[in-house]
Amino acid sequence: MLMPAPEEGTLAKRGALVDALRAIVPGEGVIDDPAALRAFESDGLTAYRQPPMIAVLPSTVEQVSAVLALCHREGVKVVPRGAGTSLSGGALPLADGVLLGLGKFNRVLEIDYGNRAVVVQPGVTNLAVTGAVAAEGFYYAPDPSSQIACTIGGNVAENSGGVHCLKYGLTTNNILGLQMVLMDGTVLRLGGRHLDPGGYDLVGLMTGSEGLLGVITEVTVRILRRPESQRALLVGFPDSESAGDCVARIIGAGIIPAGMEMMDRYAIQAAEAFVEAGYPLDVEALLIIELDGPTVEVDYLVDRIGALCREAGAVSLRASENEAERERFWAGRKAAFPAVGRISPDYYCMDGTIPRHKLPVVLTRMAAMSQRYGLRVANVFHAGDGNLHPLILYDANQPGELERAEEFGAEILKLCVEVGGVLTGEHGVGVEKRDLMGEMFTEIDLNQQQRVKCAFDPEGRLNPGKVFPVLHRCAELGRVHVRKGETRFPDIPRF
Amino acid sequence: MLMPAPEEGTLAKRGALVDALRAIVPGEGVIDDPAALRAFESDGLTAYRQPPMIAVLPSTVEQVSAVLALCHREGVKVVPRGAGTSLSGGALPLADGVLLGLGKFNRVLEIDYGNRAVVVQPGVTNLAVTGAVAAEGFYYAPDPSSQIACTIGGNVAENSGGVHCLKYGLTTNNILGLQMVLMDGTVLRLGGRHLDPGGYDLVGLMTGSEGLLGVITEVTVRILRRPESQRALLVGFPDSESAGDCVARIIGAGIIPAGMEMMDRYAIQAAEAFVEAGYPLDVEALLIIELDGPTVEVDYLVDRIGALCREAGAVSLRASENEAERERFWAGRKAAFPAVGRISPDYYCMDGTIPRHKLPVVLTRMAAMSQRYGLRVANVFHAGDGNLHPLILYDANQPGELERAEEFGAEILKLCVEVGGVLTGEHGVGVEKRDLMGEMFTEIDLNQQQRVKCAFDPEGRLNPGKVFPVLHRCAELGRVHVRKGETRFPDIPRF
Repeated sequence: MLMPAPEEGTLAKRGALVDALRAIVPGEGVIDDPAALRAFESDGLTAYRQPPMIAVLPSTVEQVSAVLALCHREGVKVVPRGAGTSLSGGALPLADGVLLGLGKFNRVLEIDYGNRAVVVQPGVTNLAVTGAVAAEGFYYAPDPSSQIACTIGGNVAENSGGVHCLKYGLTTNNILGLQMVLMDGTVLRLGGRHLDPGGYDLVGLMTGSEGLLGVITEVTVRILRRPESQRALLVGFPDSESAGDCVARIIGAGIIPAGMEMMDRYAIQAAEAFVEAGYPLDVEALLIIELDGPTVEVDYLVDRIGALCREAGAVSLRASENEAERERFWAGRKAAFPAVGRISPDYYCMDGTIPRHKLPVVLTRMAAMSQRYGLRVANVFHAGDGNLHPLILYDANQPGELERAEEFGAEILKLCVEVGGVLTGEHGVGVEKRDLMGEMFTEIDLNQQQRVKCAFDPEGRLNPGKVFPVLHRCAELGRVHVRKGETRFPDIPRF
Repeated sequence: MLMPAPEEGTLAKRGALVDALRAIVPGEGVIDDPAALRAFESDGLTAYRQPPMIAVLPSTVEQVSAVLALCHREGVKVVPRGAGTSLSGGALPLADGVLLGLGKFNRVLEIDYGNRAVVVQPGVTNLAVTGAVAAEGFYYAPDPSSQIACTIGGNVAENSGGVHCLKYGLTTNNILGLQMVLMDGTVLRLGGRHLDPGGYDLVGLMTGSEGLLGVITEVTVRILRRPESQRALLVGFPDSESAGDCVARIIGAGIIPAGMEMMDRYAIQAAEAFVEAGYPLDVEALLIIELDGPTVEVDYLVDRIGALCREAGAVSLRASENEAERERFWAGRKAAFPAVGRISPDYYCMDGTIPRHKLPVVLTRMAAMSQRYGLRVANVFHAGDGNLHPLILYDANQPGELERAEEFGAEILKLCVEVGGVLTGEHGVGVEKRDLMGEMFTEIDLNQQQRVKCAFDPEGRLNPGKVFPVLHRCAELGRVHVRKGETRFPDIPRF
C-alpha cells in the first residue's frame, strides 16, 4: 500500500527545505538522495512501503527542536522513527513528509542505582539498557521479541510488551520520566525518577501514543534486581483446549509466573526445526512457563505448577535444571517468527488481546477461518495475558494471497473485539489497524482522543495518517461532541 | 482559608438554578439550605472550609450528564466530590459553584472473576471492593489508610496509594476502565478489562487528575488472589539512620516486600498508647515490613530480612506467628494519624516523596526545622517508596501556630523537591500545594498540562482553583509556548 501522493507545491519547496534542514543538522544528517531514502521505506511490515520526501538524523535535542519548529512553521509533516520494528506501520514515512530518525540518540546518559533508574537516549536498544546494568545485577523488565533491535523510544511510543510483562507490566509500568519535543519545537520534561509527581500523568499519556503527540528525546526507565533464581517449564498438551485450561488453573491458583507462553503445532515444528530447542514434536500445544524469585520459592512453584499441569492433562513436562537449559527452552520461542518465515514465503503477524477464558473458542474459530481462506495460521502467544500473535502464512507471489491474508487478519481482530478483547496487544494501531478503530471505540470516544491530540499538535502535522481513521480539524471537534452529549441525554431543563 | 467571593450576578441566578437542578434530580437530591450545606464545607483538611452555593447528589449517569450540561450552558462551576478525604483540599467547594456529590453511586455492578475485574460505581468505598470479592479469595490491592471511608472514584481522582503499593502499584496500576462525563455532559467510556486497548491512555490520564477533567461515574478495577501467606516483621532501631540503611539493604538485595513502613519515636509512642499494638517503646525508629506469597517464600524472606535488619543494627525484631498478631502489628500503623491527634490539639499531615537514600538527611533537616519553628513533628511513612507523611503538631488556638505549621509544611515540601523528590505522594495537589507547583514544574510544563485540561474542559468550569497556580484561558495558551520554544532554541533557519 502506498500513502497518498505529495500535495501540490510540496516538491517545489523540497530543495529549499533540504537547505534549511542542512543549516540545522550538518554533514550526512540530512538525506535527500532517492536511493538512500529507500532505506527508510519500510517499517518492519513488508506490505507497506513508502520512502520519505527527506530523512533527517539529528544528534542533539536542540537540532530536534529546531527541525520540528522549522517544519511546524513551514507546514511540513513529520514522522518520527526509532528502529522501525513496530509491525503496524507506525513509523511508515510519508511521500510529502520529513522522516525524523532518532538513531543517533544512542547513549546511556546516567545510571542511578540509588533510585533504581537509568536515563537513556531514545535510540538505545531495549537490550542495551539491561546490558548497561547487568554487571551490577540489574535488568530492565519489558522484553519485546525484537529487543536486540528495537529502541527504548519506540518502546515508549508503542507501549511495548514482551514475555515478562505478565509479571512486570508493560512499558508504561516501567517508565519514570521523559524529555520530549512538541511539534512547534517546545522542549518538555515529564515525570522524573519517582512515582506520581503531581499534575496530570503526561508520561502515561505519551506511552503508547505512537509518535502523534511529540518526539521523545530522553527516557528514564526503572530497573529491577535480577532474581536469585529463574527456571522454565516446557509442558506439552494433546490439544489447545487443555493448554488453555492449564493457563486458567495456574492464574486461578493465584500464581503469576514471570512468563507464560503458548505455541501451537505449526509454531512448535517450525521453531524446533530452526533452533533445536528440545521441544516435544508429538503435541498440539506447548506452554513455556517461567518462574523467578528466591530459589526456595521457584522450586516450590515448579512443583506446584507441575501438579496443576498434570491435572489439566499435560502429556509431557520438563523443568530446566540449569541456566543453559532455560535459555535453550526460550530460544525456540524467541526464534518462532523467523522460524515460521522459513516454512512460508511470507507471513503476516497479527496482534490482539482476548479474555484468557475465550482462548479455546478463539482458536477453534481461527482454525475454521484458516480453512475458509485457504491459508495456514501458526499461533504463538503471551497466553498469560491473552495477547495473541497469529502468524498468517501466505505467498505474495500468488495473486490474491496478500489480500486474503489481510482480510483474514482483520477478521481475527474483529473476533478479538467480539469476544470482549481488544484490537492490539503491544504492536500499536499504526496504519494497519487504523480503519478498525471504529470497531472498538465510538465516535464520541475517538473525538475525545483527538481533542487530546489537538492539545499537543493542533495542526496535525506529527505522524498523520496513523491511529485515527479520520483526523478532524481541531476547530471542528468542539460542536460535534456537545451535540452528541445532548442527543444522548436530551432532558436538560432550561431556565 | 476561604475561596474568593461569588462573582457578580451569581447569587441572583441561584434560585433559578436550584429549580432547574430539581427538575433533573428529584427529591432530596438538591440541597440549598445553608445549614445543610455546611456538611460539605470541609475536605478532610480542617484548615480549609467553604460551603458550596448548592449541593447536588445525583443517582444516575443520566442525571450527572444533565447536571453538568446545565452548568456548562449556564457558566456555573462544578466541584465533584467522593468521600472528601483527600487531605489536600481537592474537593473543597466553591462559594459560587455546585458541589456534585457521588455518594449515591454506591453499588458494585459486576464481578468478573474470569477477567479478574470488578465494575463498581465511584461511591463504593475502597474497602467494600475487597469486601465484595473476599469470600472467593480475592482482594483489591491499593489500601489508603482511609480505606474504610474513601471511595474508588476519589482514589482514581487522586491516584491513591497505601501500604501495599510498594509491591502492587498505585491506583493507576490497578484500574482497567472508566466511564466518565465531560463538563458539557458527554459520556465517555475509557479502557475496558484488559491491558492497553489502543489509542491514547486516557484512563491513565484521568487517574490522578483531581476532578479537573471529568466526573467519574463507573470504575473497572483489577483484583488479585489473596496470597497463600502473609507475615509482618516489627523491627526496632536505635536511630532513624540505621532504619533508613536497613530499608536500602532490603531493596538493594532485590526484595520488594508487600509493604515497608517506618515510624519515629513520637508516632510509635502515640500509636502504642492508643491501640497497644505491642510496639517497642525504647527505640527511635520502627520498621513494619510485610511479606506475602507462598508460605515457603514468606518464611524464607522473614529469615533473610531478619539477617539484613541485624546487619543494619536493629535492636529488636519480632515476626508475626499468626494472623491475629499480624493484624495487631498493623493496627498501630493504621491508627497512627488519629493516635497523633490525641497527643496534639491539631496536626497538619504532609505528603511528599524523596529518593530513598536521602531519608537520613531529610529527617535530620526536618528535626532542625522543628526546633526553628517550635513545633513538634511526628513521622509516619511508606519507607519502601520514599513517601513521607510528616505530621506537624500544633494548636490552632495559639495565635500564629497554624501559620507557622503551614510555613513549616511548605518548607518540608520544598526540601523534598530540593533533594530530587516530588511535592506529592498520594494525597494530590489540590488547594494545599497549588502554589508550590512552580517549584516542581516550569511554566512550559504547566502550560502543556493546561492545554490537556483545555481538551476536556475548555472553559475551565470543572474544579477551578485546584492544582494549577494560574489557570490560563485556553485561547491564550498557544502563543506563549511557541515563543518559549523559539526563545530556548533561537537558531531556526528561515527559507
